[in-house]
Amino acid sequence: MSLLTVGSVAFDAIETPFGKTDKIIGGAATYISLAASFYKKNQNIVAVVGDDFPKAMLDALSSKGVNLEGLQIKEGEKSFFWSGKYHNDMNTRDTLITELNVLENFDPIIPESYQDCSYLMLGNLSPQVQSTVVDRMTNRPKLIAMDTMNFWMDIALDDLKVTLKKIDLLIINDEEARQLSGQSSLVKAADVIRKMGPKYLIIKKGEHGALLFHEDQVFAAPALPLEEVFDPTGAGDTFAGGFMGYIASTDDVSFENMKRAIIVGSALASFCVEKFGTERLAQVTPDLLDLRIQKFVALSNFNMVYQIV
Amino acid sequence: MSLLTVGSVAFDAIETPFGKTDKIIGGAATYISLAASFYKKNQNIVAVVGDDFPKAMLDALSSKGVNLEGLQIKEGEKSFFWSGKYHNDMNTRDTLITELNVLENFDPIIPESYQDCSYLMLGNLSPQVQSTVVDRMTNRPKLIAMDTMNFWMDIALDDLKVTLKKIDLLIINDEEARQLSGQSSLVKAADVIRKMGPKYLIIKKGEHGALLFHEDQVFAAPALPLEEVFDPTGAGDTFAGGFMGYIASTDDVSFENMKRAIIVGSALASFCVEKFGTERLAQVTPDLLDLRIQKFVALSNFNMVYQIV
Repeated sequence: MSLLTVGSVAFDAIETPFGKTDKIIGGAATYISLAASFYKKNQNIVAVVGDDFPKAMLDALSSKGVNLEGLQIKEGEKSFFWSGKYHNDMNTRDTLITELNVLENFDPIIPESYQDCSYLMLGNLSPQVQSTVVDRMTNRPKLIAMDTMNFWMDIALDDLKVTLKKIDLLIINDEEARQLSGQSSLVKAADVIRKMGPKYLIIKKGEHGALLFHEDQVFAAPALPLEEVFDPTGAGDTFAGGFMGYIASTDDVSFENMKRAIIVGSALASFCVEKFGTERLAQVTPDLLDLRIQKFVALSNFNMVYQIV
Repeated sequence: MSLLTVGSVAFDAIETPFGKTDKIIGGAATYISLAASFYKKNQNIVAVVGDDFPKAMLDALSSKGVNLEGLQIKEGEKSFFWSGKYHNDMNTRDTLITELNVLENFDPIIPESYQDCSYLMLGNLSPQVQSTVVDRMTNRPKLIAMDTMNFWMDIALDDLKVTLKKIDLLIINDEEARQLSGQSSLVKAADVIRKMGPKYLIIKKGEHGALLFHEDQVFAAPALPLEEVFDPTGAGDTFAGGFMGYIASTDDVSFENMKRAIIVGSALASFCVEKFGTERLAQVTPDLLDLRIQKFVALSNFNMVYQIV
């Protein structure tokens, strides 16, 4: 079943303790689509770029099966640009530059050919834009997932609460969950947030993995223990993209299948952080991904039934 | 096969955001033995108390199958006493009082009848005392596990390094692993620490679970997501006791069996934090423990093989 991703396609400039980049390709929808393409061979994207965005990169997305009919190219305007610097612990970062450019007045137009999409992933954008996308879908998708961030909780909490009522799955990190709920316990936070709308909640905990909550069920996925993280940019979007790509390709929204989707997303995110930007993701083959998934199986698998061998 | 635990049997006075206690029974060996008793029906203990220690509590340990021949009762002296206050986040605490009393000159005498023990758990004590215990075992146990803490890294690092060379498994928390290794990445920390001696390393991460390292294998166990922690005192010792009790009762030191032992230890620790001190552990029945273990299975179990149902 078809997956539609709405989000930024943009430029990033990144500095980590290991080095820095010039302007490279980034944006939530870029990472989500690339990650989803490992499972979903045809997807749709709604996004906006300026005329400064390299055609080669758009061709690269096309070659991964991403339909760009919904990608608006604004003549005479510039693409969204973000620049940030990670601290030594890699868990915190300073934003150095944010140039909204084309995102400032982004009107997410959904092509008619996208209207049959069963799966919708709303990348981190203003809650109002996310809400507009949902309203413009004439057929309600089977699963609507969204990301957001503390910035929107600070400046657009009311809009965010409206949007949360329209979606099924919220994917945020632990600090965002604490801020949104006002609870320090993640279990209590999950209860509060699910009362705001989403029936499903994934809380990402970085090096400590992720938690999935639905009704009275909880699943705890580990993160792969890594010697070092080279660049965390895009890891959360890659996780979400892997998750939604897997769900859309299997067309199964059961809790058991969401567990698998979380492992897929975690495996792809573990690649993403190994190099700057999308560089590592572009090198991953299906065989490499399968080996990485098997590492997650070995990492978290146990059998309490004692067998005498 | 027999399990020998060496550690403190003591008094604690605890204050948490939820309340405070008078002097209650505590000590590493107390928690370890109580937790291990769910699997190991006969165990040995080496410890020291003063004549102020209540006989009823010693009888309670005996009734759980703990052989007290190695418990020294010092006439005219007082038992070890620790008092602490937890901060609101429950992850940090201040020590208010530490009265070493009988622990100050503790000479760990191993009764002859303990010499055939195959499993040795060294609770948190001075590294010199831990080292002496190992030296006094005429038959080297099959598995020697130990706990320690940042205090000994601060004041007795050389002694600690000597002791680490004599043991098989070190069980410490993430901050202790970082301090001992000088590495912030836990994967790098695990490499450095295992070069110091122990072939096996368990790093406890509190609400984020635990990691087991051995050769090139890693296992990540989740912690049970809890609404709140009432009192964390003894949770680490309870984890270690459940782990070693399970290993000793199955007499199997394979990596697969250690995974099960970690789940058992985690399940028991999840009970421990529900009330002050040993109160909750004393109420746990085998059926309750089994249900809790099944919660861990549901929490972390997934099957990547997609089955069409």
